[in-house]
Amino acid sequence: MSAVLAPPETCVTTIRTLAMDAVQKANSGHPGGPMGLAAVGWSLFTGPLRHSPSNPHWPDRDRFVLSNGHSSMLLYALLFLTGYDLTLDDLKSFRQLHSRTPGHPEYGLTPGVETTTGPLGQGFGNAVGFALAERMMAARYNRPGHDVVDHRTWFTCSDGDLMEGISHEAASLAGFLGLERLTGIYDNNSVSLDGPTSLTYGDDVGERFAAYGWRVLHAEGNDLVELGQAYADAQVPDGRPTLIIAHTHIGYGAPGMQDTSRAHGSPLGEDEVRATKRVYGWPEDAHFLVPPDVARWADEMRERGRALEDEWQARMAAYAHAYPAEAAEFERVLARELPDGWDAEVPAFSPDDDKVATRVASFKVMNALAARMPEFIQGAADLSESTRTELTGLGDVNRSDYGARNIRFGVREHGMGAITNGVTLHGGLRLTCSTFMQFYDYMKNTVRLAALMGCPSIFVYTHDSVAMGEDGPTHQPIEHLAALRAVPKLVVIRPADANETAAAWRLAIERRDGPTVLVLTRQGLPVLGGPADVARGGYVLDDGDDCVLIGTGSEVSLAREARELLAATGISARVVSLPSFELFAAQPARYRDAVLPPDMTARVAVEAAASFGWARWVGDRGAIVAIDRFGESAPGPEVLRDLGITAEHVAETARSIL
Amino acid sequence: MSAVLAPPETCVTTIRTLAMDAVQKANSGHPGGPMGLAAVGWSLFTGPLRHSPSNPHWPDRDRFVLSNGHSSMLLYALLFLTGYDLTLDDLKSFRQLHSRTPGHPEYGLTPGVETTTGPLGQGFGNAVGFALAERMMAARYNRPGHDVVDHRTWFTCSDGDLMEGISHEAASLAGFLGLERLTGIYDNNSVSLDGPTSLTYGDDVGERFAAYGWRVLHAEGNDLVELGQAYADAQVPDGRPTLIIAHTHIGYGAPGMQDTSRAHGSPLGEDEVRATKRVYGWPEDAHFLVPPDVARWADEMRERGRALEDEWQARMAAYAHAYPAEAAEFERVLARELPDGWDAEVPAFSPDDDKVATRVASFKVMNALAARMPEFIQGAADLSESTRTELTGLGDVNRSDYGARNIRFGVREHGMGAITNGVTLHGGLRLTCSTFMQFYDYMKNTVRLAALMGCPSIFVYTHDSVAMGEDGPTHQPIEHLAALRAVPKLVVIRPADANETAAAWRLAIERRDGPTVLVLTRQGLPVLGGPADVARGGYVLDDGDDCVLIGTGSEVSLAREARELLAATGISARVVSLPSFELFAAQPARYRDAVLPPDMTARVAVEAAASFGWARWVGDRGAIVAIDRFGESAPGPEVLRDLGITAEHVAETARSIL
Repeated sequence: MSAVLAPPETCVTTIRTLAMDAVQKANSGHPGGPMGLAAVGWSLFTGPLRHSPSNPHWPDRDRFVLSNGHSSMLLYALLFLTGYDLTLDDLKSFRQLHSRTPGHPEYGLTPGVETTTGPLGQGFGNAVGFALAERMMAARYNRPGHDVVDHRTWFTCSDGDLMEGISHEAASLAGFLGLERLTGIYDNNSVSLDGPTSLTYGDDVGERFAAYGWRVLHAEGNDLVELGQAYADAQVPDGRPTLIIAHTHIGYGAPGMQDTSRAHGSPLGEDEVRATKRVYGWPEDAHFLVPPDVARWADEMRERGRALEDEWQARMAAYAHAYPAEAAEFERVLARELPDGWDAEVPAFSPDDDKVATRVASFKVMNALAARMPEFIQGAADLSESTRTELTGLGDVNRSDYGARNIRFGVREHGMGAITNGVTLHGGLRLTCSTFMQFYDYMKNTVRLAALMGCPSIFVYTHDSVAMGEDGPTHQPIEHLAALRAVPKLVVIRPADANETAAAWRLAIERRDGPTVLVLTRQGLPVLGGPADVARGGYVLDDGDDCVLIGTGSEVSLAREARELLAATGISARVVSLPSFELFAAQPARYRDAVLPPDMTARVAVEAAASFGWARWVGDRGAIVAIDRFGESAPGPEVLRDLGITAEHVAETARSIL
Repeated sequence: MSAVLAPPETCVTTIRTLAMDAVQKANSGHPGGPMGLAAVGWSLFTGPLRHSPSNPHWPDRDRFVLSNGHSSMLLYALLFLTGYDLTLDDLKSFRQLHSRTPGHPEYGLTPGVETTTGPLGQGFGNAVGFALAERMMAARYNRPGHDVVDHRTWFTCSDGDLMEGISHEAASLAGFLGLERLTGIYDNNSVSLDGPTSLTYGDDVGERFAAYGWRVLHAEGNDLVELGQAYADAQVPDGRPTLIIAHTHIGYGAPGMQDTSRAHGSPLGEDEVRATKRVYGWPEDAHFLVPPDVARWADEMRERGRALEDEWQARMAAYAHAYPAEAAEFERVLARELPDGWDAEVPAFSPDDDKVATRVASFKVMNALAARMPEFIQGAADLSESTRTELTGLGDVNRSDYGARNIRFGVREHGMGAITNGVTLHGGLRLTCSTFMQFYDYMKNTVRLAALMGCPSIFVYTHDSVAMGEDGPTHQPIEHLAALRAVPKLVVIRPADANETAAAWRLAIERRDGPTVLVLTRQGLPVLGGPADVARGGYVLDDGDDCVLIGTGSEVSLAREARELLAATGISARVVSLPSFELFAAQPARYRDAVLPPDMTARVAVEAAASFGWARWVGDRGAIVAIDRFGESAPGPEVLRDLGITAEHVAETARSIL
């Protein structure tokens, strides 16, 4: 039957012309990358990549990540030609409103797109996450003779990806962890947007990756035999991830633009497109031409994919027979369903207990969750003893123990975020990662991408205010809460006590369609004994008639102290705990008005952070006790006092507006 | 006279005991790093480091950066012992409120601290900036026989610094630029906070840095002879920066804690401190002991420093005689004073002009400034053709032309930010760096540190909204304006047209005590013809009685369109341009009330970004037309329409609240 299929060279040319045509039609996009990588992509997608185009969700598929997301037309053309649910019309609506072919690949929008890429280096980190998740799942579920988890991760990346610091963090950890099923293909075309990479880039990439413990191979990017050999070599297990340095030509074949930055970030122009098609021996006036023998590959690849999947289903059946409990759990975690009684061991805390930092309460909750949820894992950026996220006695993940449940990410926050997204997208594991809240700054885009993708990564940020003390202003968050709250689709929770912490954890675990950020204290806090109604975002903790004191996190107990002070002078203050702006804003107006009655206009918000964003809740007559400056290095209580985060100041402010 | 000076070994022990004592007294801090690096620091500060402790501002001093800022007691002890204006009492108030010895070194607070470090990797990037600035200043001002710029940059860094991605970006660029006067000393102690680095870190650091084009040397961290030899070797010019891998012992000498993470992030404990002093042969009950022969080094070092400075002053005098114009300019730029007529060529734009994108207006303004300000330079992260920040015809900085005025940072945003801060702190140059606004996410902490330091770096972010179009949601800022506005001490300006852009640039250039962010459009905007009173942060562009329409940037002209629509139905709308929240908030209430009269409560804000933070300006009765979701990949005007950022929607919203 293969006689009716076009030879790979024709398919490669089809990819190139589709990319040129789509970018030209959109009058926007990056044609040169897809043209240079067409042979790499085709030989991978029809060669070693084990995938099932008719079922992009087959759990044991190989993952492919286009870290150089601007070359999206390469991926769209590959998905289309290899039989995914994508049409030529989809390609013709490249970069158009509500199309399935946006400027950069978007997870959840296009079948076969494993992750959203575009901000450079993110895909690299995601790919490391996919590869790590595969090993972790294999360690959990495979049994002798039953390799139900048995796939690889492939990615392409550009010079831009490799210049970004996140690639360093992700590559270094991948090398350390010995992720030998991870293979990257570096599109070494020597051109970036502003010109030749020689303007700014002199790394010896091979030497660099060898230093991380990677195997480094080389191949001509247009030589299908060399590429095939490199893919084969990359699969020989030797304990190292592999980087294939593919020597490619941006805008391959474009007579006036190949190997120049003019082929990078804008359409080639009608004339150059035509001239390039002539070079290819392609009909120069045809647009979006897919010769029939090229089109036939879609069926061929679907069939091949189904065969791969069938073979796996047979393996699964044998596994389910031999290991029914494991198989049931495997299917449950892949379906992202929670086990019965998943939160049965989550402790309740009593106001009679000693003060407890929310990071410490979180530690207890996490370990209670871990006891019932084998899929629950955590990692920290060299601060697990401070963030208190360690799952006690459950081991550290390393190359000889992928079955452990604590990941030591090292001082690599940006990589940690991207790897966490990759692990979470892979399926089968719920990964929480943590660091000091200040270092949200280092990993912000990964949180944004989780929100954009609807990826339920969980981010724990501790040491959440100036109360963290002596480390001083470089480590004291001020603007970070506002920055987090402004991110669409992100749920940010700053619990006020141990019970709100437990409630916040329940919400984070139950959330399936987006990320959750938990913001926790370093310092001890009293257990409030309130309803801890975190799910509604805010609630009345103590009632009162004359004014409302609104707080979050550690400032709720401070608001309660202020209430006492006010009561002593005959003022009755309501205390509202507002752990989550987003969740509260999503409540019906009736509920919100019950908590913050429109006629109770004397409102004081207190938060040990920037005031930005609080006006919405305190209103025109309200006041905000906050910190609109950087912090100080001193013991936490002294810093709070120095910056006016005191019950006295809150009470005084309330009096001043009454 | 040297007979009266303590031998270096005694000084090294003094540093170690001061560090232990200070951390113990504060009951907080990192003793182990300073103990391990004491010999490295002492041999550097009394050896090759050319500095003048009695004048920490001597322009030609060598710069020293402690990138591992948590080891701050090392730096404080060195500054104290070598004669800077720091007392033993200062050391005793380590990490106490308003002391000069905060948890991490802070620029502007402690004499001799060149930059604020703590977030790991930032100091590495700053150091690259210092070294680059030195070469750029040398290229500008040195003349044959007159090397008035002739210093080096030294820094220490930890495994944490090297795990961070920013170290990759900064090191790669330093290697590319051949910054041979830059020497880093890697505190290779094999321990991080969570335990031995072998838990998570396997890089071959030497090979990695060789791949960047660095010279790599090794030395035992306690061997003064080896260290001295390494410092000497590092100064042999060979076109490469140098990394000295110093093999050190965290918590050196502590009998129960050396080489363990227990010596890293908390006090050793009174018993261990005493035991360690016994090991050192030091009086175990003495605290903050500085033997007289150690104390004498302060005078010695001040004297040595004054001699170095005198020699330089003589050079300067000869230079001023031979090159009076150059010398005058050199002194002017070091004093951060503007030349006469610095803004004389800044164009004025007319409402009769065609639409112009603010990035394009900015391009014209920047080139006009460059014509009159030789200290004005720019760099971009591989997007200068998009951010339109290139200084035309003024060359690219590279190892054979440090006199050029455009820096190609490559796709290295985080490194770019830190290097920009370093260049700016060095003095003599005003550096603007730019990228797409989305990639603020990658460099956020550098902007924060500029604000914290009061460092007047200028950050230009273009493609500032969903109107950037086809690149889609991964590249379309939403929450970024809110995130920027929440940062203390940062001035964020989103100009509405070409004239506001020019005014914004004037403010950025005139600002000496903090950073400025300019937020610019990709798309063309009409020239409004208003007063462009950016300095006040907001002003009335068009008057009206019934309601107020408030916009920033590209949405101001849209508000004006809405005003027309409202006028057609008999509603008189005032249009307020609010280019800078911070600058407006800093105005007297009288001015603010004149722009936004308290009795004009029908207010509509419009901004193509998250609504977060706008409630403050629209008040309880107001409404916000904004984008509280992620964007779409499509041509900009279609995205704006799809997301409701239209004049019709603004007019409708105004009607609905009237």
